[in-house]
This record gives sequence, C-alpha cells and structure tokens, in this order.
Amino acid sequence: MVLVRPQLGENIGKAARAMANFGLREMRLVTPRDGWPNPSAGPAAAGADLILDTAKVYESTADAVADCAHVFATTVRKRGVTKPVLTPEEAADAVHGEPGKSAILFGPERSGLETEDVALARTIVTVPIDPEFGSLNLAQAVILCAYEWSKRKGLAQPPKEDLLPPGPQDELDGLIAHLERMLEPKGYFLPETRAEATRRTLRGVLTKPGWNHLELRTLRGVLSSLERQPRD
Amino acid sequence: MVLVRPQLGENIGKAARAMANFGLREMRLVTPRDGWPNPSAGPAAAGADLILDTAKVYESTADAVADCAHVFATTVRKRGVTKPVLTPEEAADAVHGEPGKSAILFGPERSGLETEDVALARTIVTVPIDPEFGSLNLAQAVILCAYEWSKRKGLAQPPKEDLLPPGPQDELDGLIAHLERMLEPKGYFLPETRAEATRRTLRGVLTKPGWNHLELRTLRGVLSSLERQPRD
Repeated sequence: MVLVRPQLGENIGKAARAMANFGLREMRLVTPRDGWPNPSAGPAAAGADLILDTAKVYESTADAVADCAHVFATTVRKRGVTKPVLTPEEAADAVHGEPGKSAILFGPERSGLETEDVALARTIVTVPIDPEFGSLNLAQAVILCAYEWSKRKGLAQPPKEDLLPPGPQDELDGLIAHLERMLEPKGYFLPETRAEATRRTLRGVLTKPGWNHLELRTLRGVLSSLERQPRD
Repeated sequence: MVLVRPQLGENIGKAARAMANFGLREMRLVTPRDGWPNPSAGPAAAGADLILDTAKVYESTADAVADCAHVFATTVRKRGVTKPVLTPEEAADAVHGEPGKSAILFGPERSGLETEDVALARTIVTVPIDPEFGSLNLAQAVILCAYEWSKRKGLAQPPKEDLLPPGPQDELDGLIAHLERMLEPKGYFLPETRAEATRRTLRGVLTKPGWNHLELRTLRGVLSSLERQPRD
C-alpha cells in the first residue's frame, strides 16, 4: 500500500489501522505533506503502530514502486487513460495470481493521484461507488482494497509456473529514460507544449506489456545497437 | 443499516457517508447516546445529509427492525450463539436473494451489540479480520457491508473501458520489419548463426503487448524519429 503525498497524519494512521485489520503490513509513503513521523498518525492507528514504525518514506512515486513488478493506481473518476480498469476484487485476484511484488497507489485526500502517478501503473483500480455521491476517503479506499486482498488470500492460486513476472519498475524506467535520451536530440518531443503529453503516451505504450527482466534487457540491447555506428 | 446505541455523532455521519457511497439510503438509529439530531454528524457525512435528515430514531432495537423480514447482526467476536455466521459477501447474497426488507444491526463503538440485540437476528455477520489485530470501527464495518451489498446489486461495476483490441497483425509486422531494417546495419543480428533466434526473441518481445493500432502508430513514429538526423 503506497500513500502518495498524504495530507493528514490522522489519515495515515487510519490507513494503517485498515491494513492491520486485514493482515497487511507494508506501508510506503511518498513525501507526506507534514513530514514523517507524524504525531497525529499514532492515535488514529488504534494499535497498528508496527505498520507506522516500519513505514518507509520515498522522494517520488517512482522510487516507492521501483522494486515492484505490478503497480496498480486507484482512481475514482474515469480518466482518459487506456489501461485496464479493475474492481478491488479483480485487483486482489491479480495480486494473488501473479508472481512478483505488487504496489497499490492511493492519492492525496483532496485531489487523488496525479496523471504522472497513474502513468507508472499498468492497471487502474476503481471502487465502484454511487456516481451521484462519490466521496470515498483515503482510509475507506485502503480498507476496501485491503479487505478484498485478505479475502482472496485464503484461496490464493498457486503462482503461474513458468511466466516470469514483470521486471522491477526501475528497470522499466531505465528503458524509458534510455529511449527518451535517444529521441530528445531528434526533436521527437517538440513542440515543447506537447512534450509532457508525448512522454506520457510513450510511457503508456511501454508500460502496457509488463515485460520481464529478460525482455527489458533485450530491449536495452536493441537501443544500444541503434545508437552504434553502422558496421561496414 | 441500523446503528444501535451509537455514541459519537461523528461516527453516525461517517456511517452515512459510507452508505451514500454505495447507494444505500435508509438509516435507522436506536437511542443514540447524545440524542438526535446531533450537530457533529453533518460535517462527518461529507454531503450525505439526505441520509441523516431522513434517519429514523427508535426506542428499541426490536422497534427498529419490526418491519424487516431479515435481521442480520454484525459482531466481530464469535459468540456462543447458535446462528449461522456469514461473511459480508454471503450476507449481501442473502439480502439480495430473499424477498422482503433486510436490516443489518451495528452495535455501539466500544462494546458492540448486546446479547439481546443479537437475539433478534436470525443471522450473524462477521467481517473476517486479522484476529491478532481486530479493531474495526463502526464506520468501517458499515462501509464493508454497504460495499458488498452494492457489489451484488449490480449497480456497481465500473464501466469497462472499451479497450482497443490489438492492432491487425500486418501493422505489428510492419513495426517489426521497420525495427529490423534499422538494426541490420548495426550488426544486431550477428553472428549469422544466432540471427534466426535473435529475430524470434525480438518478435516475441514486441508481440507480447498486444498493442492497438494507435500504439503501433506511436511506435512507428518513434522509429522514424530515431532514423532522423539530429536537429541542431
């Protein structure tokens, strides 16, 4: 469970409590607004202190998920993203069904995840709520995902045998950065006003496959070859 | 949803918010400790005022469920009662599967339901939580039951994005051929004895994603850019 830029310590505590109820132990925090540790978190955790004490803090969302094979982004609203959208139930199936570490990203209380955070994920998780109300808070989103995770835990499918899990997120980031370095001098990201959207599109296309570490290595080799001078 | 002797107005508000998110509208209160209406409830309801405004107050749990065909009692601990015990999921199935009105009873924050309240119910609902932690608050219990109810209702599933299907095979072949043309002069397929296996690996990596025609077009653009002379 990765809380991205959470605002109130109290909500971090509540999220920890929600996790503890369902046997989840590992919390990661990306630049919590009021720093960390936060004295408001403890009382709200209702005894889930171990989770708070061992929570790790990261400078960026990318850092927080660098060692994860599967990254899920929770969003309430539908977005113009072309990624598969799962319910918490389906996401729990996916987490248990695949080998490799999974991260679920939760955005800040008010605003939710930014587009760049969502871009890191291969899959969207949306809690199906009443569209006419639609006010799910952070700890509620966490508890529903944790609850579904724990329901599926009992009947966890055996991991699929020979499929390698997607490579760790930092290897994917390495590939994307490599390609961007090559494209930059070619003017691929011009005009400047479109650069960010273009980068996001490119990331989306390369995130979708879920390449394993061998495949990522192959592609790094392809890029290195393309940079080479022609043989003659 | 019947809150039996709830203590804090704030928790009544949170329970209303939880219900509203999942399309539940009817809340009943049995002798709330601090009377009703309670000014602390509104702010915690985050807009679910309609539920609070129409909540009915009863003198006893028996009165509150008098018109209900099915009464469920939520408890965390197992009790010495000989009633069927369901998960929230199974309870939701039961609610939807049976004709007649259903009530789910939730006890006071600290103590939970009394034996007499439980006695009114035909069925127990227990949220399966980690026995070593076990600290689910009132609003959390309500939201999990509301969530399961709404899942079964069919209201709920987020609309499946119509994800574009993979592009036609000849577009994928075009991409692969384009990349191979670029790699050939760089010696990527040498030594010759390994060339066929290398081509197969490359094709495998690029086939796995199932890119749609927009994504394939993006990647053709990437390759064309890489072939360009640098801008200066």
